[in-house]
Amino acid sequence: MQNFIFDNPTRIIFGQGMIARTGGEVKRFGTKVLLVYGQGSIKKNGIYDQVLTSLKEANLSVAEFSGVRSNPVLSHALKGIELAHSENIDVVLAVGGGSVIDTAKTIAAGVKADSGDDVWEFFTFKKKIRNALPVVTVVTVSASASEMNPTAVMTKEEGAQKFTISSPFIQPRASILDPTVLYSLSPDYSAFSAVDIIAHMLEGYFNNREPESPLQDRLVEGLMKTVMESTEVILKDPRHYNARANVMWSAILAFNGLTTAGMGFVSFPAHMIEHSLSALYDVAHGAGLSITLPGWMIYAVNKSPAKFARLGREIFGIEETDDLKAAVEGIDSLKRWFSTIGSPTSLKEAGIPEDDIGRIAENASATAAVWGMKAYTKEVISEILHLCKG
Amino acid sequence: MQNFIFDNPTRIIFGQGMIARTGGEVKRFGTKVLLVYGQGSIKKNGIYDQVLTSLKEANLSVAEFSGVRSNPVLSHALKGIELAHSENIDVVLAVGGGSVIDTAKTIAAGVKADSGDDVWEFFTFKKKIRNALPVVTVVTVSASASEMNPTAVMTKEEGAQKFTISSPFIQPRASILDPTVLYSLSPDYSAFSAVDIIAHMLEGYFNNREPESPLQDRLVEGLMKTVMESTEVILKDPRHYNARANVMWSAILAFNGLTTAGMGFVSFPAHMIEHSLSALYDVAHGAGLSITLPGWMIYAVNKSPAKFARLGREIFGIEETDDLKAAVEGIDSLKRWFSTIGSPTSLKEAGIPEDDIGRIAENASATAAVWGMKAYTKEVISEILHLCKG
Repeated sequence: MQNFIFDNPTRIIFGQGMIARTGGEVKRFGTKVLLVYGQGSIKKNGIYDQVLTSLKEANLSVAEFSGVRSNPVLSHALKGIELAHSENIDVVLAVGGGSVIDTAKTIAAGVKADSGDDVWEFFTFKKKIRNALPVVTVVTVSASASEMNPTAVMTKEEGAQKFTISSPFIQPRASILDPTVLYSLSPDYSAFSAVDIIAHMLEGYFNNREPESPLQDRLVEGLMKTVMESTEVILKDPRHYNARANVMWSAILAFNGLTTAGMGFVSFPAHMIEHSLSALYDVAHGAGLSITLPGWMIYAVNKSPAKFARLGREIFGIEETDDLKAAVEGIDSLKRWFSTIGSPTSLKEAGIPEDDIGRIAENASATAAVWGMKAYTKEVISEILHLCKG
Repeated sequence: MQNFIFDNPTRIIFGQGMIARTGGEVKRFGTKVLLVYGQGSIKKNGIYDQVLTSLKEANLSVAEFSGVRSNPVLSHALKGIELAHSENIDVVLAVGGGSVIDTAKTIAAGVKADSGDDVWEFFTFKKKIRNALPVVTVVTVSASASEMNPTAVMTKEEGAQKFTISSPFIQPRASILDPTVLYSLSPDYSAFSAVDIIAHMLEGYFNNREPESPLQDRLVEGLMKTVMESTEVILKDPRHYNARANVMWSAILAFNGLTTAGMGFVSFPAHMIEHSLSALYDVAHGAGLSITLPGWMIYAVNKSPAKFARLGREIFGIEETDDLKAAVEGIDSLKRWFSTIGSPTSLKEAGIPEDDIGRIAENASATAAVWGMKAYTKEVISEILHLCKG
């Protein structure tokens, strides 16, 4: 076990009917709320009305900032920061999935930055976040775990760079999760969510500094089994409460620091490469990960066949005794499972031309540099991308 | 999944060398510290010196309150409250195991109570804790998880009542855990710790309101396997860092709200009955639990044989296909494992006379009443105790 600090103070309010508590939670931090949301789906499925009713009952004054799209962009977040300044906002309320929550976090930190230029410097790690407005979330897509972690991801359109910030100041103070909210999530996005949750865990499972991690491995395997069986239920019955609830809570536990506590520095190569796919082609993050994760696994399998074999045996019941063979069977099984639930597993399936591999590798190597992943040169990334062709 | 709130803001600082951070953590909450500890073992194993050095480096003023014994008593905690008043204490620092931490929590709440009489009324749920001094802990025995939960257990000598309080105000703000501290823990107490950790989880596993809990069940099973295999290593090699670290972190995850989130109201019958054993006979809590838990399991097995069978199959690899038979085999296996590690599994082994069953049941039924466990009448408790005879 490596030394660690686990400090996760987000209050999770979980269950059917809990959105009615939004106003009460927000009110702990002030009276002027910036309500951040996406393209308006929350107006169709009734969540917007539930939230507004609760905010009004708590006598809060609300300014709205909508239009966040998936793979959110910095230029949009900067407009949110301006609005937050002009409305003298006390607290930022995100109602949405990871993109909306990450935009809210960026706004919360940006309001306390010296200038708009500084905000991107948070993402390039040139400047450190030293303060932020409090953030509260109502989750409508469960995958990123942004609702219970200190991280946000944002794309700068100029240069198509998709980078990350992490600071305790932007960690949500409270997050409200009602599984019935997920009933209207499409089969595609239900599948992409499952891929994202699994990818968060497997990156830590394979890329860490701790050679002996029976506890963390078991936590990952238990969560992964639960997400897989629940997703299979959801694709048949989108309104299955327990299956939606299991995914909603597993998504959080998969990436709130629990499964990586004690693992030392963890790196995220499949995410690093995927960020370039979604920055350059605007594919859904989960769809990109079902391409890059198996590709990366094939690239890496020879370095630790025993660990890859463990995954295959624990998750897919593979009985092969040779580690390398079991490992490869496991990777194949995972890839097949991603296909079964409807997530693409090759660049080709996602409509990304093979000829673009050089350009993607160029873009990803910039992320690798910022994330301190020296082993991932443009050449290595290119090699992995060739394993993602299909 | 039942509705739940998960709100666990304790900062965990984990690993070798981390005790040097004690002063820095304590200083966040004030300058006058009440240092609470037990019978002085921390002076023998060097932990006292490490803590004092760190407190001095942070320029903190320290008042000492020692002498906490296992199964801590209210009369002693009341003296600590007096001392905290007279020294005008800002923050309470517990250096010890569950008994010391629970005494520190009781003092922290008691300082803000109107009178000493009120303090016991917190435990009988007649009064509610409305404020407390901040608590910080340095853990020297890992079992109770008191270092990351809002609960404390205390015995009132008059009437031999062992009751519980729970309040967010007494939840530690920070807890420092260095696995090397456990190297000097005796084989007996290493075994009792394992029993306590497992019992915390199994009570929730069996006594909850949620019929379908694949995620929580897997978390429990993964933690339980880790605690069992690590304890076996520790009994052979008490200075095995990873085994001690796995137990230390598992103890927390076993009882910090994680494994019961979504399970609805959870009851603790084996703990309820054990409290009477330790209140009346001063047996170690873990030793008492290895007697009452298997007894309770035999009593309850017919009510949900499938769940008991699941435990037997997952933990002990039992292949029997009949649920009731597999369940009984599983209980036998658990009892045998408790014996193997050196924890008693019958009243007889603990030197408690069979003739006392009536008296124990009388005492336990008072706890059952306070804890709202109506089904556990004196007669039912007596029946369970007869199954604990050996």
